[in-house]
Amino acid sequence: MSTGTRVLIGPDASPWLREAVLAADAIVVDDPQLAQAVVWRGSDHERLARLLDEAPNAALVQLGAAGTDAWAPTGLFDDGRIWASAKGAYSEVVAEHALALTLALLRELPRFVRADGWLPQAGTSLFERTVLVLGADGGIGREFIRLVAPFRPRVLRGLRHAVLDEDDRTLPLDEALAEADVVVLATPLTERTRGLLDARRFASMRPTSIVINVARGGVIDTDALVEALSTGRIAGAALDVTDPEPLPGGHPLWSAENCLITPHTANTLEMLEPRLAQRITENLRRFASDLPLIGVVDAAKGY
Amino acid sequence: MSTGTRVLIGPDASPWLREAVLAADAIVVDDPQLAQAVVWRGSDHERLARLLDEAPNAALVQLGAAGTDAWAPTGLFDDGRIWASAKGAYSEVVAEHALALTLALLRELPRFVRADGWLPQAGTSLFERTVLVLGADGGIGREFIRLVAPFRPRVLRGLRHAVLDEDDRTLPLDEALAEADVVVLATPLTERTRGLLDARRFASMRPTSIVINVARGGVIDTDALVEALSTGRIAGAALDVTDPEPLPGGHPLWSAENCLITPHTANTLEMLEPRLAQRITENLRRFASDLPLIGVVDAAKGY
Repeated sequence: MSTGTRVLIGPDASPWLREAVLAADAIVVDDPQLAQAVVWRGSDHERLARLLDEAPNAALVQLGAAGTDAWAPTGLFDDGRIWASAKGAYSEVVAEHALALTLALLRELPRFVRADGWLPQAGTSLFERTVLVLGADGGIGREFIRLVAPFRPRVLRGLRHAVLDEDDRTLPLDEALAEADVVVLATPLTERTRGLLDARRFASMRPTSIVINVARGGVIDTDALVEALSTGRIAGAALDVTDPEPLPGGHPLWSAENCLITPHTANTLEMLEPRLAQRITENLRRFASDLPLIGVVDAAKGY
Repeated sequence: MSTGTRVLIGPDASPWLREAVLAADAIVVDDPQLAQAVVWRGSDHERLARLLDEAPNAALVQLGAAGTDAWAPTGLFDDGRIWASAKGAYSEVVAEHALALTLALLRELPRFVRADGWLPQAGTSLFERTVLVLGADGGIGREFIRLVAPFRPRVLRGLRHAVLDEDDRTLPLDEALAEADVVVLATPLTERTRGLLDARRFASMRPTSIVINVARGGVIDTDALVEALSTGRIAGAALDVTDPEPLPGGHPLWSAENCLITPHTANTLEMLEPRLAQRITENLRRFASDLPLIGVVDAAKGY
C-alpha cells in the first residue's frame, strides 16, 4: 500500500483537482475517516464543517479561495487544524487586471468605447504618478508594484499598521490619500478594512484621483463612492468587486460614466485552475515532507 | 552680442517653444535670413518650404512630429539641411497607450463598459503570451517591450528586414503572425509598411489574436480589417490611428464590438509639450556643440 497522504477532495472531485492531488504522490479518498488532508473548492463552509466532524485525522484543510473573509467569522479556523488558503496563487492575474483597470481609467477608455465618432484628445499618463497601494505587502499588492515599476511611479505602501513612502517614512493614511493619483485596494476584507474608503477618506482625495478595487467590495463604502463620483470628489473608480455583489441592475454605479465595473473577473476560472492545481500539489508535497506550507491562514487575523 | 544659435520658431512661437529654445542658450529670431536653425510645429510643409527658401543659413530643421510620413514625399528631406524629427520623444507615453489598449482588449473591457448588469466572467491574461512587435527597433517598439516585460511574454521582434524570435532566429512574417497572440504595430508609415496588414496577413493570424495600432492608420488595410473583425478571423483590434483619419461617422469600425478606437490620443498635447520642449533644448545644445543630434531623419528611409 502506498504511503502517500490520503486526501479528500470536496465538494466535487473535478478531474483537474484529482490530478493536482495525484501529482503530489498523494492518494484520493472518499471516506472522511481516512482523510489526512481535505482540499475544498467553493464557499459552502457548513458542508465542510459537517465533513470535518467526521474527519478526525484531517490535519490540513486547503481552500481554493484566496480571500477568506466569508470563512473567518465561522470560527472554523480555530479548530486546531492547519488551514491554508490560495492567497498569493492568483496575485499575478489579479494585479494584471488592476493595471488594466488603472490604465483604462487614466486613458479614459470607457468614454472612447461609448463614442461612435472622433472625440477630442483626452487621457493622462501613468508615468511618474503617485500610486498608493493598500495591502502592499500582500501577494496582489507586491505584484502590482512590480508590474507598475516600469512607469517609475512614486509608490506609497499601505501596510497593516502604517503607510510608508518611498523612503520608508511613515505617513498618515489621509495624507497618503491626499497625495495619491491612483489608489489601489488589494487588502483582505476584515473588520479593520471594512468600509475603509468612506466619505471622510474620499474627502481627503484629489479630484483628479482614481480608485481601483480588486480586493473585496466591502473595503469601500458604496454609498460614499456613489456620492464621491457624482460630485466629482474623485475622478473615477474601477471595480472588479462590489458591495453588494453582484451589483444589482439599476444600481447608480451602472450609470456613473466615471465608473468602470467588471464582474469579479480578474481571476477567471481558466486562469484559476492551473494556478490552484499548482498550489495544491506544492502544499501536499510540503505537507508530506513536514515543510512549511504556503498561504497558511492566521486565525487571529482572519486571512 | 550673444553667440547663441539663432533660431526661428514657426509657424507660431508659443511661449513654451520659446522657453525651450532659450533654455539651450539660443536666440529666437523672426527674420529667416538670420536663422541658423528652424523649429517647426505642425504639418504645413508648403509654408515651411517657402520659409526655408528665404533661410539660406538654416542648417537644421527640427520638427515637432515623431512620424514624418507626410513630409517624406515632399522631397524636403533632400535639401542638404539636417532634418530632425521628434522620433523617440513620445515613445514612453505611446507605448503606455499601446499597453492600455492591449490589456483592455484581452480583459474584454469594452464589453464590460457597455454592460449595465453583471455579466459572466471573461477575459484572458497577458502573462506568457506571444507578442509580435512590428517596429521593435524603434522608440515605441523598444519601450513597449520594456513595459510588457514583467508579464514574461515571448517577444517576436519585427525589424525592417526580418522578424527575430527570442533566440534571434529569423522567421517569416506570416509565421510570426501565426504564432502571435498580440500584434503591436509601431512602425513608421513608408511605402514598405503601407497596407502591411492586409487580407492575406489577417488570414495568417489566429482567431484568438488581437491587433494594436499606435503607428499610422495606413499600416493596416482598413477594409481587410473590417472583414477580419466581422468574420472572426481575428478576435479584436484597438486603434489609436485609423485610415482614413479621423475615422468618419458611420464607418463600420465604429459599430464593430470587437474594435476599440481612440482618437489619436496616445500622446496628448499635455504629454507632448514637455517632451518636445526637452528634445528641442537638447538638440539645440548639441547643434551648438557640433554633437550628433537625436532623431535625425534618414532621407532615404523617409523617417
